[in-house]
Parts: sequence; C-alpha cells; structure tokens
Amino acid sequence: METARTSTTTGPVRGYVHGYSGREARRLGDQADALAGLLHDGTSYPAGSRVLEVGCGVGAQTVHLVSRSPGAQLTAVDLSPASLDQARARVAASSPAARVEWRVGDLHDLPFPDGAFDHLFVCFVLEHLPDPRAALAGLRRVLRPGGTVTVIEGDHGSAFFHPDSAHARAVIAHQVALQAAAGGDALVGRRLAPLLAAAGYAGIEVGPRTVYADGSRPALARAFTRDTFTAMVEAVRDEAVAAGLATPGDWDRGIADLHRAAGPDGTFHYTFFKGVAVNPAD
Amino acid sequence: METARTSTTTGPVRGYVHGYSGREARRLGDQADALAGLLHDGTSYPAGSRVLEVGCGVGAQTVHLVSRSPGAQLTAVDLSPASLDQARARVAASSPAARVEWRVGDLHDLPFPDGAFDHLFVCFVLEHLPDPRAALAGLRRVLRPGGTVTVIEGDHGSAFFHPDSAHARAVIAHQVALQAAAGGDALVGRRLAPLLAAAGYAGIEVGPRTVYADGSRPALARAFTRDTFTAMVEAVRDEAVAAGLATPGDWDRGIADLHRAAGPDGTFHYTFFKGVAVNPAD
Repeated sequence: METARTSTTTGPVRGYVHGYSGREARRLGDQADALAGLLHDGTSYPAGSRVLEVGCGVGAQTVHLVSRSPGAQLTAVDLSPASLDQARARVAASSPAARVEWRVGDLHDLPFPDGAFDHLFVCFVLEHLPDPRAALAGLRRVLRPGGTVTVIEGDHGSAFFHPDSAHARAVIAHQVALQAAAGGDALVGRRLAPLLAAAGYAGIEVGPRTVYADGSRPALARAFTRDTFTAMVEAVRDEAVAAGLATPGDWDRGIADLHRAAGPDGTFHYTFFKGVAVNPAD
Repeated sequence: METARTSTTTGPVRGYVHGYSGREARRLGDQADALAGLLHDGTSYPAGSRVLEVGCGVGAQTVHLVSRSPGAQLTAVDLSPASLDQARARVAASSPAARVEWRVGDLHDLPFPDGAFDHLFVCFVLEHLPDPRAALAGLRRVLRPGGTVTVIEGDHGSAFFHPDSAHARAVIAHQVALQAAAGGDALVGRRLAPLLAAAGYAGIEVGPRTVYADGSRPALARAFTRDTFTAMVEAVRDEAVAAGLATPGDWDRGIADLHRAAGPDGTFHYTFFKGVAVNPAD
C-alpha cells in the first residue's frame, strides 16, 4: 500500500510506484495520518525497550511509533539514504524532542548484532519482497528470544465498492499484476499468519483492520478511498498503459469509477492485516 | 448468506439454495450460533418496545433477538408457514419462556397497522429481493416515526482466502451469478448505506462486521469457513453444473480449495455489513 517502502527491497528497481518526490512524500504522510489510528492501535512499546522499525521509508509510520512509544529506544533502518533524510525531517517536525537512531541498511543483512532488539515493527514492507518468508525468518536474528514482531500489510483483494465497476476492478488488478511482475505481492495481507508460522515465529495473532467509507463519512472517503487507495492505483497509470494492460480510456474510466465510489452515493471497503508474533527461544 | 430467508421474497421460486430440510435447518442454526456475537453485538431492544423481525425464516436470528432483548415485545413474520413452524420450535427449545408473536405475511404487504413497531430487524433478507430499496421504503409504513431499522447482509465479494485459487473464486462467482439470476444480490452488503438513504431513512450508520479465520483459530475456520460459507456455496453445485457454469470437476476442485483455506495453513476473510437507521417524521 505505502509504496515508497520499495526502498527496503533488494530486488530489481521498481519503477512502477517508486516516488521520492515531495508530492509523493506528502501523500504518504497524509495516508499514514488517516490510517494511524486504525493501524497503530494496540502498538505501544514500554519505556527503555529497544525497537527497530524495519524499512521505515520516508517515516510515515515512524512519527506514530515515536508519539505512541515516547520512552522506547527506537532505531529506524532503510536501504535508502534519501528516504531516511525525509524520515528524519518528518520526525523532527512532528516530535522535535524525539531521539531516533537512523541507519542505512538492507533488511536482509541488517547492521545490528544478534538479539539487539526487543521488538520489530514491519509495516508495508513484505508486499514488496520476493521472499517475505525468508525476510521474516532472517529478521529473527536481531530479535531477542521472547521479543515480538509486529507486521502490517494491506491486501488489494479486499477492495470492493459501490457502484461496482468492472473497469475499476480492472485497474486494481493491473496494479496487482505490476507489483507481482516487480517481485512483490499486493495480496500479501491474507498470508501474514502462514508466513509468520513458516518463518518460525510463535504465538501468532493476526487480525483484520478494516476501512469502510460511505456517504455518511465524506472525510474518510476523501482521505482513504480517493486520496490514499485511488491515488496509489492512479500512480501506475503510465506503467499499466505501457505494459499494454489497459488502454488510456479504459484506465481513466476505472479511476473515474473509483472516484465515484468515494462520492456521496458510493461505498468502499479495504482490509489491512496486523499480526503480532513472538520469536521463540530456539 | 442465510439462504432459507428466500421464503420472505415474492419473486420467482428460488431452487438454488432453497432448503427446508432438517439438515438445512441445522446448518442455518449452527451458522447463526457461530456468528451471533459478531452480528448481534449492539442490538438490544428496551423492555416493552415493539420489535418486528422481518423474514424470520427458520428462526436462526430470532433466538438471539429473544435472548438479547428478553423484555421486548417481539413479532416475527415470514411468508412460509413451514419456516415459522421451525422457528417457533427453535425458540421454544432455546427460550421456553419467551413469548413471540408469529405471523405469516409478505414483507411487501405486511399485516400490521401503520406505525405498529418501534424497531424493525431485517437480517439476510435483502439479498434475495429484486428491489431491496422498494422493500426498505415499504417497511417504513409499519415503523413509527423515530423508530429504527436494523439491517444485516453479507457480501460475497468480500470473500478472499489463502491459498488463493482461481477455482475457488469461480465457484463463489457462480453462486453470485445464480443468486442474481434468481433476482437476488449476493453482493448487497456494500449497498446497504445507499439503499437505506434511497429508501428515505435518516441517521444511517453502516459498519463492517468481519470474520477472519486462520490456523490459529481452527474452531472458527471449521464453523465459518467450512461449515457456513463453503457449505452455502457447495449447496448450489447441482444448479451450477446444470446451468453450465462449471464442470463437476472444476466445481469440486473449487470446493476442495475452499476447504484448504479452512485448514491449518489457510486463511479466510468475509465481511458482513450491519446498518441502523431512523424512520424520519415525514
């Protein structure tokens, strides 16, 4: 969902939604604000606990980690120095007193000793990885036995809406196809529980976090249906057309139909999944 | 979702999942028990209030209305005397002291005076109606101004699962197509809010009620994924094959894949929608 997190991957460069422009960074920030309550509810780390945000990107979630766990010792790692610069600036603006350790690093080869952290936080990262199971398994090295991992992902297969529209469903499917072609999985949310199990975690608890907007919630329809989900799909227009997945006309009609679902007579449904699991003592 | 509610419709006879057999009635009862907490949470009517359950079918929801609103004056109406007999027996078995007024009647022409009720409860009924907006609008006649209607529906477009399977998606799509051919809409959940608005209700509040089951919740996976959702789809096998929608082999593979989603490595997601709205003074 939050596509700037592609910077944490080691796979092929992903042009399809790769954006470090100021506009993209703002969109990601707006998105995170709209979703923060939904996604971060239940995540608060004790004072003094050592927390690693894996793949912090431009800091869209980091600001919420900082505000909800002000006493935790937060480290944020990302493959992209440019993203880290933006993340640092974002946190400085929202929480000037916060102390975050920013580190450049690849989540597949993290620059931390074994068991360095009590908790890991991994949000909108797995969707971009060719082998999310291996990534989760590898993260256990830096997590102390008994420590927890929190994972949040969307699932574009959860998107449905009124009025229903074959064109709108098609543009979403094209986004899913482009992400798959780049080695990712926009449907990864439904797999969180089995992925965590296969990666060796215990005490796995995964639950849905659903966004539903209709005409009675116009602000949410704007913030999520239009400015988050539809904007995310819309961003891959050129790639989808270039790949021959859609004609410009069909694409634009699909996007228009998603906008209609954000209107006063429309409805829109999307499910994120949030999982927490424990790193067992071997 | 709860298909015995077809008895409340006035449309063409629906053979595709019409079941008044003992086995079907038990399945519907099991389904309601598994879902009761999810669907009925928040629905409790004051003592003395006059409540009408519209399309009570075999009483799968009636037993929960009775237990959660023991002081309310509950009337239950259904088009089918046979269903009412089963509903009466079900309530007698679960709440021997309960007093419910059972009435045969068509929801499009209810045998009650204007404004006879303080609250209406309509669960798994709209999905079977050719014109759910008109039905909701017509119900306002028997609801006093200021009274509430509670509506609950599923949406088969919310079903997704792991492992993903084109065959499983196809059998669900066939069930949706058969229900549409019979004049219903298995995707009606997403439309609840606009339907209530178009029917003239006010103060509309609709929210998702999501079922998510994975390997950590084997009882829920059995009760919902396997014994409720998959059983409901499975029941239309003969109709789907006869209609040429699927070969027996493809059908059985789709069902097998849904069963796999109910297994230890599978996950399954489904969203119901529950709405409450007020009958405004004209």
